[in-house]
Amino acid sequence: MKADIITIGDEILIGQIVDTNSVFIASEFDKNGIYVRRIYSVPDLEMDIRNTLDDSLQHSDIIILTGGLGPTNDDITKNTLTKYFGGNPILNEAVLAKITEFFKYRGIEVSERNKKQAEVPDNCIVLPNHSGTAPGMVFHKDGKVIVSLPGVPFEMKELVVDQVIPYLQKEFKLPVRYHKTVLTIGIGESALADMIKDWEDQLSPVFGLAYLPSPGMVKLRLSITGTKRTELIKIFNKELDSLTSLIGEDFIYGFDDDTLEKITGRMLLENGYSASTAESCTGGYIAHLITSVPGSSFYFKGSVIAYANEIKSSVIDVPKSLIKKYGAVSKEVAEAMAKGIQNLLKTDISIATTGIFGPEGGSSEKPVGTTWISIALPDKIVTENFLFGDHRGRNITKASLTALNMLRNEIRTLNENIE
Amino acid sequence: MKADIITIGDEILIGQIVDTNSVFIASEFDKNGIYVRRIYSVPDLEMDIRNTLDDSLQHSDIIILTGGLGPTNDDITKNTLTKYFGGNPILNEAVLAKITEFFKYRGIEVSERNKKQAEVPDNCIVLPNHSGTAPGMVFHKDGKVIVSLPGVPFEMKELVVDQVIPYLQKEFKLPVRYHKTVLTIGIGESALADMIKDWEDQLSPVFGLAYLPSPGMVKLRLSITGTKRTELIKIFNKELDSLTSLIGEDFIYGFDDDTLEKITGRMLLENGYSASTAESCTGGYIAHLITSVPGSSFYFKGSVIAYANEIKSSVIDVPKSLIKKYGAVSKEVAEAMAKGIQNLLKTDISIATTGIFGPEGGSSEKPVGTTWISIALPDKIVTENFLFGDHRGRNITKASLTALNMLRNEIRTLNENIE
Repeated sequence: MKADIITIGDEILIGQIVDTNSVFIASEFDKNGIYVRRIYSVPDLEMDIRNTLDDSLQHSDIIILTGGLGPTNDDITKNTLTKYFGGNPILNEAVLAKITEFFKYRGIEVSERNKKQAEVPDNCIVLPNHSGTAPGMVFHKDGKVIVSLPGVPFEMKELVVDQVIPYLQKEFKLPVRYHKTVLTIGIGESALADMIKDWEDQLSPVFGLAYLPSPGMVKLRLSITGTKRTELIKIFNKELDSLTSLIGEDFIYGFDDDTLEKITGRMLLENGYSASTAESCTGGYIAHLITSVPGSSFYFKGSVIAYANEIKSSVIDVPKSLIKKYGAVSKEVAEAMAKGIQNLLKTDISIATTGIFGPEGGSSEKPVGTTWISIALPDKIVTENFLFGDHRGRNITKASLTALNMLRNEIRTLNENIE
Repeated sequence: MKADIITIGDEILIGQIVDTNSVFIASEFDKNGIYVRRIYSVPDLEMDIRNTLDDSLQHSDIIILTGGLGPTNDDITKNTLTKYFGGNPILNEAVLAKITEFFKYRGIEVSERNKKQAEVPDNCIVLPNHSGTAPGMVFHKDGKVIVSLPGVPFEMKELVVDQVIPYLQKEFKLPVRYHKTVLTIGIGESALADMIKDWEDQLSPVFGLAYLPSPGMVKLRLSITGTKRTELIKIFNKELDSLTSLIGEDFIYGFDDDTLEKITGRMLLENGYSASTAESCTGGYIAHLITSVPGSSFYFKGSVIAYANEIKSSVIDVPKSLIKKYGAVSKEVAEAMAKGIQNLLKTDISIATTGIFGPEGGSSEKPVGTTWISIALPDKIVTENFLFGDHRGRNITKASLTALNMLRNEIRTLNENIE
C-alpha cells in the first residue's frame, strides 16, 4: 500500500516553520505497514494543490493532505478539494454543533467565518475534530482514499491516530511491518559498514537496513515487512541477534529511543553509584546531558567546570607542578582532575575532560581536537586519548558522548568481573 | 526565479528524522529572493529521484537536492545524477586530496569506500566540502541549475551559504532582497504583536514581517523586496529604527546570528570582567552556552554545578541553616550561591540558578517551574523569581537564556550609570 503526504502552507516554503506534520504521519504509516512514497510541501495555491493531486493519484493508493482548512482567506484547501472531486459545499449540522459548542466553552460568539468551517463537500466522509474547528474529510476516487486534515499539529495527530489509521486498516489489507534501531558509538559509518558487510550481503530482501550518522554516533535501523506478525518477529530477532553480536556491546549502547545519558543514568542508579564531573574542554556539557534526565539528582551530585587552569588547582587540587610539567591537556592532569572531583564531591565515580577544542590553542604536538578523558571508579582510573576534529561545537558533543560511553563500558566491565 | 528542493533519504519517508535541511534552504532562498515552489522528500531509489527531477525541471529554474552522497550502499544519489545528466564518473584529485587530508588529520587510513567518494561526474562543477568527505555538485541543463549537496546538516549549511547562494546570485539576476532579524527575549509572541500593532499596520506592502517563536524567545524577521539596493536599505533602516525603539533594548538582545552567549561574552570581554556560574537546576547548561563561544576562556573561569544540596554548602559555602530555613529553591540560597562562587573562583561577576524543573519535586507553594536567578556584580546583587512551565528540557533552556539576558541588562545598566 503506497501513500503520499502533501503538506500545504506558504510558511513551509519560505522556511518559516519546520514541517513536523509529515514526519509524524510518515512514522505512523511506517508502523502500520503503509509505504510513504513521497512527501510534498506546496503553497496555499489552488493550481499547486491540483497539480500535486494529479501526480499523486497516478502513483499512490492513499493521499494525506494537511493544512489550509482554517477560517482565514489564505486557507483554500477545502474549496479546492470540493471542486477537484466534483462536490458541492453543504452545511453539516453535526460539525456546526461541534463548532458552536467549542466556542461556547470558551465564552466566545461564533463568527460567520467560523460558521463557514461547518460547510463541507457533499461527497466526503466527515471526520469530527474533537480539539478544533476544522473537521477532517475523506474522499474516494478510483479505489483510492484521499484524506484532508487540519494543519494544527495536535488536532492532526489526534485525527490520524484515532480515526485515519483505523479507517485505512478497514479499507485496505495492510502488510505487517516491524523494526528496531541499533544505536552505536565509537565506530565510524564506513568502519561499521565494513564490519557487517558479509551479514548485510546475506540479508533477505524482506529486510531493510539504513545507516543514520550524527556527530559521534551511527544509528542502524533494521526493518522487516511481511504478513504474519509472530513469524516476522521471530525471523527479525534472529537477524538482529546476529547483527548485535557482530558489532558488540562496546559499540552498541542501546536501541530505539535510548540515549547515553539515560543508559548511563540507569546503570549508576542500579549499581548505587554516585557520580560527578570535572570538565575543562566540555565546559559543562556532560553535566548538562546527565541532568537533562528526570531523576538524575538520585545519582548525580555535581561538577566543577575548571575552565581556567587556576581553578583546576585551587578547587579540585590538581598540583600546579603537574600542569607546569605536562601541560593542562595531558593524561596526568586528566587523572588528577578525576581524582580531585571524586574526593571533593565524595562520589563513587567521576568523569574528567581536558582538551583543545579550538579554533585557537592548537600546536603541532597537540593539535586542535586533542582530548584526554578520565573515568575514576572506586578502585581504578581509566584514561584515554582522542583526536577529534577542528569544529568546536561538534568536539564538545563528541567528547561528551565519548566520555559517557567510556563510563558505560567501565561499569559494564566492573559488573562482569563481579559476576 | 523559482526553485524546488528535493530531500533524499528513506529515513525521512519512514518518519525517523525531521527534514530540517529543506527549512534551512527554503529560508536562505527566501532571504535571497528565490521563490520556493515545491519541497519533495523522496526515498533512496533511482526511479524516484529521476521522476522527481523530470517533474521539477518542467517547472523550476533551480533544483537543490540533499542527501544520498555518503559512502554506503544506500547512498545512490551521485550515480543516479551521473547517469541522469549523461556524465561519467572520474576520480577528482582535489576531492581525493581533501578526503585523504580529512582522514589523515584523524589518524585513520582512507578506505576504498571513502576513496569512491572522490569520484565525481565529469559533467559537473565540484563544490569543495570543507567539513566532510562528500563534495557538492552543480549540473546545468537547458538554462537550469541543479545542485546536489550532502545531507549532513552542517556540511549542507556551509555549502549553501558559502558557495551555492553566491553561485546562484552570479548565474541568475536575483531581485534585491534585504532583511534583518530582530532577536527578543522576555516577551511573548502575543504581547509583542500588541506592542507593535500600529507600526505593523502602517507598513508598506514591500515589507514582510514574520514572527519566529522558539523556547524563551521570539525572533522578528523584517524583509523588503525591490530593485535598487541603496534605496531599499534606506527605507528599510527607517522602519527598522521605528521597530527597535518601540520594543526597546530590555527585550532586544541582538540581530540576525547573534546569540545571548556571544553578546554577553563580548560585553564581559569589553568591560574586562571575569565570570563564573553556580548552577543547580540548569545543571551546567549556562556554562555550556558560555563555553560554546570560541575565546570564552578569556573571560570565563569556571563553574560549580551544585546539584546536591550538600555541594551547595561544602563547595560554595551556602550556609546549611539558610537551606534549612528557606529551602534550596529560594531567593536567599540563590544569592548565597552567587556570592559563594564569586568568592571561590575570584570572578568579578557570577550567575546562580536554583529551581524545580520536574517532573517530580513540585508543591503547591513551589510548583514545577519555580526558579530563582541571581546575578552578582562587583558591588551589587540582583535576584529575580520566575515561573517557567512544566517541561524539563524547555525549562533548562528558558532559565539559562533568561539568566544570560539578566546579565546583559545588568552590564548595560552598569555602563549607563558610568556614562
